[in-house]
This record gives sequence, C-alpha cells and structure tokens, in this order.
Amino acid sequence: MSVNGTMQAWGERADGNPLLAFVDSCLRGVGQVCFMNNPVTGLAIVIAMFIGEPWLGFAGLLGVVVSTLAAIVIGMDRGAIRAGLFGFNGVLVGGALSLFLQPDWDIVVMVWIVLGASLSTILHAALANVFIGAHAVPPFTLAFNFITLIFLIGALNFANGRVGGLIAPADAQVTRGSVSNTLRSAADAATANNLEGVLNAIFRGIGQLFFANSIVAGIVIVVGIAVCSRIAAIFAVVGSTVGMLTGLALGANGVAIYNGLWGFNSFDAALAVGGVFFVLTWRSGVLAVACAVFAAMLFGAIGTLFIPWGLPALTLPFCFATLAFVLLKGASTELEPVEVADITT
Amino acid sequence: MSVNGTMQAWGERADGNPLLAFVDSCLRGVGQVCFMNNPVTGLAIVIAMFIGEPWLGFAGLLGVVVSTLAAIVIGMDRGAIRAGLFGFNGVLVGGALSLFLQPDWDIVVMVWIVLGASLSTILHAALANVFIGAHAVPPFTLAFNFITLIFLIGALNFANGRVGGLIAPADAQVTRGSVSNTLRSAADAATANNLEGVLNAIFRGIGQLFFANSIVAGIVIVVGIAVCSRIAAIFAVVGSTVGMLTGLALGANGVAIYNGLWGFNSFDAALAVGGVFFVLTWRSGVLAVACAVFAAMLFGAIGTLFIPWGLPALTLPFCFATLAFVLLKGASTELEPVEVADITT
Amino acid sequence: MSVNGTMQAWGERADGNPLLAFVDSCLRGVGQVCFMNNPVTGLAIVIAMFIGEPWLGFAGLLGVVVSTLAAIVIGMDRGAIRAGLFGFNGVLVGGALSLFLQPDWDIVVMVWIVLGASLSTILHAALANVFIGAHAVPPFTLAFNFITLIFLIGALNFANGRVGGLIAPADAQVTRGSVSNTLRSAADAATANNLEGVLNAIFRGIGQLFFANSIVAGIVIVVGIAVCSRIAAIFAVVGSTVGMLTGLALGANGVAIYNGLWGFNSFDAALAVGGVFFVLTWRSGVLAVACAVFAAMLFGAIGTLFIPWGLPALTLPFCFATLAFVLLKGASTELEPVEVADITT
Repeated sequence: MSVNGTMQAWGERADGNPLLAFVDSCLRGVGQVCFMNNPVTGLAIVIAMFIGEPWLGFAGLLGVVVSTLAAIVIGMDRGAIRAGLFGFNGVLVGGALSLFLQPDWDIVVMVWIVLGASLSTILHAALANVFIGAHAVPPFTLAFNFITLIFLIGALNFANGRVGGLIAPADAQVTRGSVSNTLRSAADAATANNLEGVLNAIFRGIGQLFFANSIVAGIVIVVGIAVCSRIAAIFAVVGSTVGMLTGLALGANGVAIYNGLWGFNSFDAALAVGGVFFVLTWRSGVLAVACAVFAAMLFGAIGTLFIPWGLPALTLPFCFATLAFVLLKGASTELEPVEVADITT
Repeated sequence: MSVNGTMQAWGERADGNPLLAFVDSCLRGVGQVCFMNNPVTGLAIVIAMFIGEPWLGFAGLLGVVVSTLAAIVIGMDRGAIRAGLFGFNGVLVGGALSLFLQPDWDIVVMVWIVLGASLSTILHAALANVFIGAHAVPPFTLAFNFITLIFLIGALNFANGRVGGLIAPADAQVTRGSVSNTLRSAADAATANNLEGVLNAIFRGIGQLFFANSIVAGIVIVVGIAVCSRIAAIFAVVGSTVGMLTGLALGANGVAIYNGLWGFNSFDAALAVGGVFFVLTWRSGVLAVACAVFAAMLFGAIGTLFIPWGLPALTLPFCFATLAFVLLKGASTELEPVEVADITT
Repeated sequence: MSVNGTMQAWGERADGNPLLAFVDSCLRGVGQVCFMNNPVTGLAIVIAMFIGEPWLGFAGLLGVVVSTLAAIVIGMDRGAIRAGLFGFNGVLVGGALSLFLQPDWDIVVMVWIVLGASLSTILHAALANVFIGAHAVPPFTLAFNFITLIFLIGALNFANGRVGGLIAPADAQVTRGSVSNTLRSAADAATANNLEGVLNAIFRGIGQLFFANSIVAGIVIVVGIAVCSRIAAIFAVVGSTVGMLTGLALGANGVAIYNGLWGFNSFDAALAVGGVFFVLTWRSGVLAVACAVFAAMLFGAIGTLFIPWGLPALTLPFCFATLAFVLLKGASTELEPVEVADITT
C-alpha cells in the first residue's frame, strides 16, 4: 500500500474503524495546512511540532482533535471531514495559542484552545460557503487567523486572557535607519551571513509554519511533504528560500530572517501556486516564485500594521498572496487550473 | 386584528393612507434592528429610547425618518421600504451620533444625523445587492456601523465634528493585570456580584442595542419583541445573558458588563440564529448560544482594536458573528434555514 | 479621424504596428484612471505629471509600461490590455512611490516601482475576477491602493525601504479644537478665502489624482478629459468642487483643502457616477454629487485611520464611495446602468 499521494486505499481501510478513521482525519488535517491530504505527512508534522516543543505538539493535537470533533457535531460533510478540511485551522489555533499565551501546560490556556478550535470550524465552514460558492477558491487558513487574532487582541484587556511576553503593543515608527539585515540568531549574536545562516533561515522557515523554530523540525516537515508529493516539497524549499531572499533584499531585520519568520508564508504560498492549484509549466513556476515574493512583502506589511496591538501576522500573508494568485485562473488563457474537486484545501 | 407576527392585516390597512403607511414603515424599521417586522415592537423600542433619554429618542426618530425618506427618493423597492428595511440603519445612526457627539439638541449634530442616515440608505442598498445577490444573506446593520465609524473617525480632526468625551484615543496596552470582572455600576462603585448586578447586566444589555443604558428600557424592549415573537424574546434574554457570562469568564471589565456593553451584540446574535434564520431545533439552539459567545468575544476584540482612535465597537460584533453562523446554512445537512423570502432583514 | 470618445479608428490603425499599439495601450491606461479609454487624454495627463515634476512624470510612465508589459507576459486578455485596463494601476503606483519614497531619480526606488507595478497587474486581474464575476462591478484602483500601502507600511521597518518625510507615524488625537478650515497654501500662509483659494482647491484637486500639486496640471487634465467626453469633464470639475465644499463644511484643515487633497477622490467619484456608470438623468446627477460628498467624508476618515502608520489615503476613498454608489444599479428601478461591456474600467 503506497504512502504517496492521498493514500486512498489506506483511507478506505481506515473507514472500517471509527476511531482509526478519526485519527486518520486528524492527521490529514495537520497535513492540509500545506495542502497534503496524507496522514503520513500529518504525522511527520506532529513529530516536528513535538521536536519544537512538547507543549506545542500537545496544543496542536488538542486543536486538530477539537476542530474535527466540532465538524462532526455540527453535521459537516463527511468527505470533507475525512480529507482533513476541518482540522487544519484547529492545529494552527492550538499551536498559536500555545506560543502566544502563557504559561505552558496551563489549564485555562487549554480551555481557550478548545474554544478557539471549535469556533474555527464554524468560521471555516462559513468562509468556505462564501469563497468556494462565489469565487471557486478555498478560504485557506483565514479562519485560523481571524479566530486567533480575535482572541489575542481581546485578551490584552482580559484578566483571564493569559497573553504572554511575545504580545507587546508599541508605536509604529520609521526604523529603517537602525535596521540591519545581517543574518544572526539574536540581536547581539555573531553574524551568520554564511551557509549556516542560510540553512537556518530556510528550514526554520519551514518549521515556523507550525510554530516550531527548529532547523530539524523544518527538515522533518520537508521529508513528510515529499512522502505525499516531490513537486510540493521542492516548491516548499524554493518558497522559503525566496521569502528569505525577499527579506534580505528589502533590508528587513536579519534576526527575524535567520529564525525563519520570512520563510513560512512564502513556503506555503509557493507550494500552493506551483504544486497544487496550477498545472506545472514554466509560467506557473515563475508565478509561484512571484507569489512567494508577494507573501514576503505582505509579511513585512502586516507585521508593521499590527505593531500598535503587538500582534503577529500569523499566516495572513500566505492567505492574501495565494488568494490573489489563485484567482488568476480564468483570467489568463496561459494558466491551466487544477479542477476544484481535485484540490483538497 | 392581531398585533403578533408581522401584522399583515394592519399593514394593508395602513397602505390606504400615505402618511400612515410612512409612519408604519418607520416603526417597522425600528423593530427590524432586532428582526421584528412589527410596528408595535418598533413603538416599544422608541418608547425605550425616550426612557433612556429624550434626545436619544428624538435622534433615533430623526434617523429612521430620514433614511426611509431617502429610500423613497432614490426609488428603492416599495415592499422593502414598507417592511422597514431602509429604516433600521437610520435609527441606529441617529442614536449613535446623539450619544457620541456633543452637545445634546445641537442643530449641527442634527445635520450630521440627516447626512449619515441618508448615506446609510445608499450603502445598505449597495451592500444588500452584494450580500443577498452573491451569498443569500443580508448585510445586517453593517451600513450603520460603517457610516457612523466613517463619520466619527474623520470628526476627530474636523472643526465642526462635535466629537464628545466618549471618543478618547489612547494606546493599546496589556492591561489584563489590572482588570477586574467584579460587577459594579462604576469603577469606584460598590460590588454588585448579586441578582441586582446580573439583572442590570442582562436588561441594560438589551437596552444598549439602542444606546439606552437603562434596565427599564431593556424590559420594555423585551416586551415589545414578545408582542411579535415569543421565541425571539426568549433568545434575546438568553443572548444577553450569554454575553454577560462570556465577559465574566474572559475576565473583562465588570463596569462594562454591569452597564450592558457585553450583552447587546450577543442578544441580537442569539435572536437571529435561534429565532429568525434557522428552524428551531436543539442544534440551532446550541448554535444560537455559540453565536452569542462569539459575538461577545468579537466585542472584546473590536473594542481593543479601536482603542488607538477611541472608537466604539457599535454592532460590528453582532454583524460578523451572525454572518458567520448564518452562512453555515447549506454547509450542514442538520440545519434547516428559513427561506430568504420569509426573513425580513 | 476624431480624437473624441474612445478613438476606435485610431486604435485599429495602431494595431498594425506592435510598438505603436503598445504605446497606445499605455496612454489609454493613463486615461483609464479617470475612465477615459482615449490616448489623447492619457497624453494630456502624462504632460500634466511632467508639469507637476519631471521625476513624477517619469515614474508614472515607468509604472504604466511595466504593468502593461506584465499583463502581456502573464497572458491577459488582449482586448483588455489594448483598452488600458492593465495600465491605470501601474501609473498610479509609479506616481505614488515617486512621491512617498526618497530621493528622486533613485535607482532603488525605480526597482520598487517595477516590483509594485508588476504586482499591481496580478492583483488587479485577481480582483477583477472576483468583482466583475460576482458583482458585475470593476475593482477600480484598489490594486494600486493595496500594493502601494503594502509596500509603504512594510518599508517603515526596511533598511532599503526609502520612505521619505511625508510618511510620519503619529498618535491619533482629537484635534478639532485647533483645526482651521481657512483656505491657505501653507499653515502659516496668508488667508485665501477668495477666488484664488477656490480655484486652487478645485484644479489642484484634479491634478492631485496624479500626484501633481499644480493648478496648471489640473487644467491640462480637465482639457484632456474633455477631448474624450464633455460630460465627464463637467463632472470632474463638479466633483472636485463638491469635495472642497464638503471639507469646508466639516471644518477640515484649510491647507489640505487649498492643495487639492479634498478634491481628487470626489472628482473621480462624481465622474464615475455621473458620466460613466449611469445614464445621465437628474437622479443620477444628484447621486454623483452625493457620491462626491461620501468620497470626501471617506477621505477624512481614512486619513485619520492611517495616522498611526503615517500613511496616505491614496484613492481608497474614491474606490469605496464609487463602489457603494455603482452597486445601487439593479436596486433602484429609477437608475439605468450603462452596460458593463460598454464601460472601460
């Protein structure tokens, strides 16, 4: 039984056991964050999250389980649930709240993850109704972004909000004179404008999509993606690389680039355009790179936009950039879109 | 002649007299803020606004009259006008500007109400075209929110803007350490974590939808809603209660909760989901409660989002939460939507 | 061969020579900013931009050339390219970045213009897909606004961002007490509440759509528009006048009004509603004026909204106001829309 592609044979076998089918749905849900309807990819990503931090891995699992359960309770389409389409927002809600709320392993934070993951399922169903119905594009991870941001911004003023030190409201300023794009692991660390810096930027840029700031986690994820699709894995690395290069060219903060923050949106954007939504040609390949550039620019823009509330850009840059490029389908006779029914998220 | 439901017999009789038909349209417009196409409900709400403050009642009436007139001049659908669908934004524009602009009974403020109420009709017609045409959902009170916020934010820098003391721009901060969710009427008032506090939070939460911070106004409105629909009145009270409980659970400011600010969006959201858009079942009832929770979370989020400009969240939380839940129709086979033609707003 | 209207005969002759056809497409693209599918109008506007500043004229040309080329490379519809529909965002991206980035004639700024103009073509194609497909309205200049704002806000924190002194983040405040709507060329200049002040406000208000703060540039543009359409030229002047009057009535800063900042959005909005999208009647004429008022109010609102990042409102006020009014079509039986196929942008 092949582990490549969408593992249809395995999926049908898992259907015979409700618990196994549920676990399979959840793992596919984790894989669907990067469009991989494949439980092995999902498993690799879960391992990568535990490598990043056990609390991160636990929170991600809690999120994907709750959001998938919520879809069953509300009565969503079974095929969509089985393909993981009601899990990918939940795993990210869990990961994000585990990172931005404090302390780790806190029962209140877990309650907020359960609440957020449930709501992400409802919001995703609503957005999918609008996006797929009217425009034949999926809403990507918008539900995760909205639910997480709604919770975090409100939490600034909630006694039980549990916001941690990473959320630090400040005034937006013109800081370009004092920004250095020198690659380095921390503001006062040694310069790493070399292979070490580049490899960290690229593979942490893969891991950061799942909040795992770890070069090993990034490599495990790329391998997991390659199990499902070699083309997708290549575009993942290309995308993260383009994101890093865009950050360097614009003159963004080199600490953020080193730690992969300029990579994760571009990685997912390039993978979507180059490996999922358009039949691969030289033109769609160029567009995948352009989309990675646009996602990186949006990362810079949204990060600055959110400074007054101290909020993270999350994957909004990926969502907006990919939406813009995927909506080109039909507008150009030179681009052949993959049938919507064949796309998993 | 029954005063329950949409009072169709009365509406047809009123059609015989243009002035009476216009008054009936305006009163239905007031009722439509909470989906009640019923002039008696509208009259009860107008009385509640006058109980809140005579200037509030006058401003609300000015708004509903102007926005309904504007719809006639532009040539909107007569059936929609008669059902009050071009009045509900206007009454809220009038109420909001009467509260956030100063002084009371000012002729310039009245001019801004006339301007805002007229524009709300045009914007609502445009939004309805998009929302109903493409997604088969109404735009709720979005036009009121946009027009009011557009005016208030610009007015910060207008010599004739008349912004009052309730609009106070500030920096967003992490204040969670110093926030107390103890129910009390003012920051330095006695603790009211008792029946008095709870009743104030719930019924002021009904009145605040119309800017009436009064427990009596809230009760009058619930009675007015019950004239049209008992189920709607029950969900109104349930929604306001859920909003209060969500605020308490998150640890929001107890002064705001006591004064009904956590109730009014949740009240309208629960009423919409539980009593208007879905056929009542245990599932739609649970969703109504979930929608009230989401509306309350959005109230906290949007309030903090608007801090840098000192703006109020108005009913944006209700709009966004209710849109998300109403768009579930079609996505779940377990939810039976009410026919669009049978929904009044 | 007539130079009025869309110059179809000339366009067909230019088709015989690829270079000439490309130049014609670019000039039509410049004209399309104000809905004029006419190369002579475009030429007049280019001249007006050079009158404003040679660097502005060059940057605008660079933008329109790059964005039109990008459309050819991606494989957009040839008829749309020939009508200038992939040039109007580019010319504005070029003009805006030449004004808000520093220094003039800088090679890095030119690179950002090339990047931004290319991306504006992709984003416009995507937005057109959504807007025309689902709602039968064009996305106007939204792509220009989004791309320019995305670049400028990110650039606050980019070492190579080149943001100039016009981008100055600050706290939003209630300044109404200290704002004066006295017309004057600078804060400390002599009062110009006379014909000189009014003419400056109106015709600079025309030029400012293309970032040319020059009364002569404004007059050249009006003449250029009149070549294509007399009705459009009249509504251009009416719109700018209404924008000025709205600013004066609200009590906005008289320096901004004198320098045309309250005119350019209202000019384009009135022209669109009165001269392009609706068959001219007294009702559509009144709506054109109302749309100019709304665009001016939005200019005040968006300007204040962007204060924390020091960003300009660009033509977002025009886009939002015109969208609202154009979406009225179909909602009112009294308004006759021009066929979508007959509208050029």
